[in-house]
Amino acid sequence: MTEPFFSFHLEYESRECLARVGVLRTRRGEVRTPVYMPVGTAGSVKTLSPEEVRAAGASIILGNTYHLYLRPGTEVLERFGGLHRFMAWDRPLLTDSGGFQVFSLKKLNKITDEGVLFASHLDGARHWLTPEESMRIQRAIGAEIMMVLDECCPYPADEATARSALERSARWAARCRRDHPPGRNGQALFGIVQGSTYLPLRLESLARTAELGFEGLAIGGLSVGEPKAEMIRILDGLMPAMPRELPRYLMGVGSPEDLFYGVARGIDMFDCVLATRIARHGAVFTRRGRIDLTALPWRMSDEPIDPRCACYACRTFSRGYLRHLFKAKELLALRMASLHNLTFLINLMEEIRAAIVQGNFLTLQREFLAGYLNQEDLS
Amino acid sequence: MTEPFFSFHLEYESRECLARVGVLRTRRGEVRTPVYMPVGTAGSVKTLSPEEVRAAGASIILGNTYHLYLRPGTEVLERFGGLHRFMAWDRPLLTDSGGFQVFSLKKLNKITDEGVLFASHLDGARHWLTPEESMRIQRAIGAEIMMVLDECCPYPADEATARSALERSARWAARCRRDHPPGRNGQALFGIVQGSTYLPLRLESLARTAELGFEGLAIGGLSVGEPKAEMIRILDGLMPAMPRELPRYLMGVGSPEDLFYGVARGIDMFDCVLATRIARHGAVFTRRGRIDLTALPWRMSDEPIDPRCACYACRTFSRGYLRHLFKAKELLALRMASLHNLTFLINLMEEIRAAIVQGNFLTLQREFLAGYLNQEDLS
Repeated sequence: MTEPFFSFHLEYESRECLARVGVLRTRRGEVRTPVYMPVGTAGSVKTLSPEEVRAAGASIILGNTYHLYLRPGTEVLERFGGLHRFMAWDRPLLTDSGGFQVFSLKKLNKITDEGVLFASHLDGARHWLTPEESMRIQRAIGAEIMMVLDECCPYPADEATARSALERSARWAARCRRDHPPGRNGQALFGIVQGSTYLPLRLESLARTAELGFEGLAIGGLSVGEPKAEMIRILDGLMPAMPRELPRYLMGVGSPEDLFYGVARGIDMFDCVLATRIARHGAVFTRRGRIDLTALPWRMSDEPIDPRCACYACRTFSRGYLRHLFKAKELLALRMASLHNLTFLINLMEEIRAAIVQGNFLTLQREFLAGYLNQEDLS
Repeated sequence: MTEPFFSFHLEYESRECLARVGVLRTRRGEVRTPVYMPVGTAGSVKTLSPEEVRAAGASIILGNTYHLYLRPGTEVLERFGGLHRFMAWDRPLLTDSGGFQVFSLKKLNKITDEGVLFASHLDGARHWLTPEESMRIQRAIGAEIMMVLDECCPYPADEATARSALERSARWAARCRRDHPPGRNGQALFGIVQGSTYLPLRLESLARTAELGFEGLAIGGLSVGEPKAEMIRILDGLMPAMPRELPRYLMGVGSPEDLFYGVARGIDMFDCVLATRIARHGAVFTRRGRIDLTALPWRMSDEPIDPRCACYACRTFSRGYLRHLFKAKELLALRMASLHNLTFLINLMEEIRAAIVQGNFLTLQREFLAGYLNQEDLS
């Protein structure tokens, strides 16, 4: 019997909450869930080499279809046999549909049922992004997991706007699935649940997406500016209705506290640029909250960022030296903070997986949030 | 018998030319000469970690006293026990005197026999740099090799200006040696030969510097804008007069072709920011000359920068991918080009040392320059 191109196995379900532990199996290896996926927007996890991303413990990373389509373009990606070989990353990859960036662009020209006409942020050239074109581009990139093209709804959106985006997303999802049936090119395809902050719309979107038979389901349109309590309310209402056997991916969410909030509600996959973006401004995660490495108190500090962390930055450098590097605008500063923040989230997720299996996830959550947010558990 | 704090041993002298092979012994290990020393201006070889600088093969690196004095400052450096520990570099270090940067500053305020009054490029604050203050700062940094403070003469300079700088440099050199006698703090001190493009002044400066009893001698004020032929003319006239037993350091010089020109004339040590500076603009060294990684011809190129190079960049990435990283302004591009260029120069120097011992340095020089400059040997 041949191995399927993609599968998800639930290994443990918490009795404390909806948290679960599982494993994604892909043609490029396994991904243990829940998982945090670093973002490699333009074919590079910013400032880091693939060797460092592996050393941070990443088992899967993201590529952004919008960026990779415009640069280097599918012609180059095809010449190199796809993004894995181009960027020297041999573990699984996930690509988004390109829709989120296109809908966030100021130069979005036109949305029709056919697709979206947009102008490149690089040279202003106009391009059509359709469900089929998104599938074509994602096949050229060659990620193990592709995402359907959906219409992203801004926050806040009135109910009519949210419904209209949901309807179009459902039509586009069906076209994506038709264009990319299960196993085509060895690449899985995930559907996306939309519906903004309207729980009835979310549940309807879930039902209509689930029936299209995707290899996984994502939740889109959260962490787009709504209050944290709104995100949690939607997850609380939506997650119990998600099919148990499919992996669940909460798109664009991945602060340390959000990992707990999502895992507790049954999310299996997270991605977020936060870790690497704030790192480039000097902010790093510690068990006692985020700290700003550029701050004066670290001038004479001989401590590492986090004494419990085994990343190269924490093994090698003091806060005092890292502060100096930030002040002197040395690029090594950006690298070290990025490496640490990724390591922190990935190690945290490993602890979370162990705690779920050991039946003490809620204890870990309470203790972590008390230290990190310096306040009582907000979940 | 206790080990001396610093020594230089000549191991082989070429019969083809003035080239020689030797070893510097310091309290932090050996440096095989001739050597190329990467520059870590502000306590970091730009874009690279100390682990990568070691992997490139560097046995000694530079720190710039001017930059380190202004930031992080000697108070911080002393708190951390010196630059080695601060930046996590456990091999030998060399520091310049701070003079070159001060004399290059537009805001140089006043030069007297006492020293130089300058305004910081960071905040405009005024500081006095004197021979004794340069020694004090360099002791706080803690490099194995310190340099005397000299008056740097711009190019072109008339003979009276060059003589005046020479005289003041000689007085300052004597004050540096008095302030920092042999073995103080375990740190060696090198004198600097000045005299601009006037060979009689160079020879006079050499005689007056040599008699002060330094642990090594440097040649300053070359590669400051003069034609290459002028630099070579001065080296041709000066080098045969240099004391055989001392290490000879050609300051601020280090293009691939200059390494050959200097070694052939008996230079033992080189430093230059060229390798890392041009790397950040996409220019990398190959056996067939410099190439511009941002150029269109590399768009589809699956070749490494240099198939003979074993650096991480050449082992891992194609020119096509590196071009993409430069175009997308990904910092990984700057790192990879910097790592490659350092590896290239350090490997080239290793080849040069082997060729000297094997008696075929001139053959290597001819073949390298023919390929690199794509023309006949100019030396």
